[in-house]
Amino acid sequence: MTASSSTIPAVAVYPGQAGSIHLTEVPRPRPRGHQALVRVRRVGVCGTDQEIIAGTFGSPPADTSELVLGHEVLGEVAAIGADVRSLAVGDLVVATVRRPDGCPACQRGQPDMCVWRTYTERGIIGAHGFMVEEFVDDANYLIPIPAALEAVGVLAEPLSVVEKALRHANLIQRRLNSWAPTTALVLGAGPIGLLGTMLLRAHAMEVVTLARRPRPNPAAAIVEQCGARYVSSRQQSLAAITAELPPIDLIFEATGVAQLAFAAMGALGSNGVLVLLSLTGGNATESLPIDLLNREFVLGNKVMVGSVNSAYEDFTAAVADLSRFEALWPGLTGQLITHRLNGLTDIDRIAGKIDDGIKTVIEMAPPSR
Amino acid sequence: MTASSSTIPAVAVYPGQAGSIHLTEVPRPRPRGHQALVRVRRVGVCGTDQEIIAGTFGSPPADTSELVLGHEVLGEVAAIGADVRSLAVGDLVVATVRRPDGCPACQRGQPDMCVWRTYTERGIIGAHGFMVEEFVDDANYLIPIPAALEAVGVLAEPLSVVEKALRHANLIQRRLNSWAPTTALVLGAGPIGLLGTMLLRAHAMEVVTLARRPRPNPAAAIVEQCGARYVSSRQQSLAAITAELPPIDLIFEATGVAQLAFAAMGALGSNGVLVLLSLTGGNATESLPIDLLNREFVLGNKVMVGSVNSAYEDFTAAVADLSRFEALWPGLTGQLITHRLNGLTDIDRIAGKIDDGIKTVIEMAPPSR
Repeated sequence: MTASSSTIPAVAVYPGQAGSIHLTEVPRPRPRGHQALVRVRRVGVCGTDQEIIAGTFGSPPADTSELVLGHEVLGEVAAIGADVRSLAVGDLVVATVRRPDGCPACQRGQPDMCVWRTYTERGIIGAHGFMVEEFVDDANYLIPIPAALEAVGVLAEPLSVVEKALRHANLIQRRLNSWAPTTALVLGAGPIGLLGTMLLRAHAMEVVTLARRPRPNPAAAIVEQCGARYVSSRQQSLAAITAELPPIDLIFEATGVAQLAFAAMGALGSNGVLVLLSLTGGNATESLPIDLLNREFVLGNKVMVGSVNSAYEDFTAAVADLSRFEALWPGLTGQLITHRLNGLTDIDRIAGKIDDGIKTVIEMAPPSR
Repeated sequence: MTASSSTIPAVAVYPGQAGSIHLTEVPRPRPRGHQALVRVRRVGVCGTDQEIIAGTFGSPPADTSELVLGHEVLGEVAAIGADVRSLAVGDLVVATVRRPDGCPACQRGQPDMCVWRTYTERGIIGAHGFMVEEFVDDANYLIPIPAALEAVGVLAEPLSVVEKALRHANLIQRRLNSWAPTTALVLGAGPIGLLGTMLLRAHAMEVVTLARRPRPNPAAAIVEQCGARYVSSRQQSLAAITAELPPIDLIFEATGVAQLAFAAMGALGSNGVLVLLSLTGGNATESLPIDLLNREFVLGNKVMVGSVNSAYEDFTAAVADLSRFEALWPGLTGQLITHRLNGLTDIDRIAGKIDDGIKTVIEMAPPSR
């Protein structure tokens, strides 16, 4: 693990094998042509990582049975290939996750809308992730981020997911001559729900964030500090919240619970948009009032849209909005990072459940540096 | 009922009272200012009319307990007010249905997207309809139609409903850099399903139309004459059709059966749009695979949108497309009109079920004319 060794440490799993998280060694990468070498500062852990660690999601690159974890990254450009013009050594960067497969959407710059669905995703599907000392990537997938955002830049990826959600809601609503959303509901108070709450508050919407845990708790505190209202579903039902609010223009569903995704259909106001953001891995079935839901969707011209991943422009929007959040609510974004582990010494703890935790990040810089 | 009488005959119901369809007399109207007087040629009957006749839908104008039926109309301008510039006496016209209520959407020219939902709809909600010898309306709600379309112009209103559906699907899909829909599914082979099939075929899409009745039948014949494929759900399931088709870009749901609306969610391809077009009046519940539906909506960035009513521009598009249909498939559109009744002598038959019927129209011109 010295600077001269030909391999570097990484955190990996054998996809499909629960509990297979381990330290491994991968070849030290070198940037060529349009690539940059990125020295990783830290990597966020999300629900998808937990599923991969649990063996229920993810796949390795074609030539190995091992997958290096991690898709939420902040790093520093350590070297660039001869053709790189958009980055310089020393720049802080974040990286997009999905790599295109040549489908019509990917070809037109929208890999997040991939229709062949044979893409790779770094740290998730068919490509190594960023829980490693250094990685190389095409400069087209790296977004510079101001040094002032060093502490929170690792949240650019999850923020980009809600940036895409809001961007698509707004694109869809160009069908209206009168789209001026004022009331929003966010379901879930994990990192996606909280960043979604902050984003909608930054757009001056009235926001209610519904999550399971009663107040007070760290997520509720963040919700309230950005001027939204936190409601525990144990204390007030979705129907009761809906009844006391003006018509709801926009809903972000980020609970991972499909029951809530479908219940949210009934909470939407006329011309409203429900954005589904959480992958529900199970096989749950549920009895739904289908006549009523269909009738209200038709009479109210309502929209439900699924949204996955995010595009380059969502990362640039996320970087801009991280600065905006700092200006609006100094220090608040950093409160989402509740736990820090060391990627080389704490890997057994990555998989564990952390009480009151919102976002765990893995520090990847070697202790000696 | 002579030309000089001060009242004219109309077909009306007492909303909420099943079987109350009757002939009535209403004051002979006179056009003022920006209004035109329209002499009705014929009026189409649709599922909404059947619900109103059955007493399960509809409401009368504020000052009466009676509602004149009819919202699908073709007529001839018989007189115009002093301020009318867009119409001339002798023009054939069709009329929009919904009248705005001053909400932000209505104010901006989109009463079909009304958010207050206190609109009136002629022949349906709070305003008399067109099953009458003559009516007046603001010229802004009347759309001229070429004399060559006299026979099929009464279908402009139901066609406008699918014009809006396609327009909104296309507006929504401006979120994609690569929207080029090629494969469509139409659920239902009533007038909306058939006109939707023709519209999508006129846009050169591959269309499969799924309906209950086995071939051969008159609706299946129309589907096949415009180059679409008719499939009976008794012979092939939605899942089986979906499995043999390329990914489905667009679905129009026009069955009136909410089970199919939700089943259609699972038939949609990546980035696809499901447009819900049918009002389901019951209180059915159904057990759905919610985890799977949610997951696929998210991973495939899919959209479900409800659509009701139609805007002025959808009527102008419908009028243009009726001409296009005649050019593409001479005489085919007229095959949708399977039954003609006389509004002054046959009203007892309006409510009746007609085997093999697609669209019944009510001729309103007095026999003596």
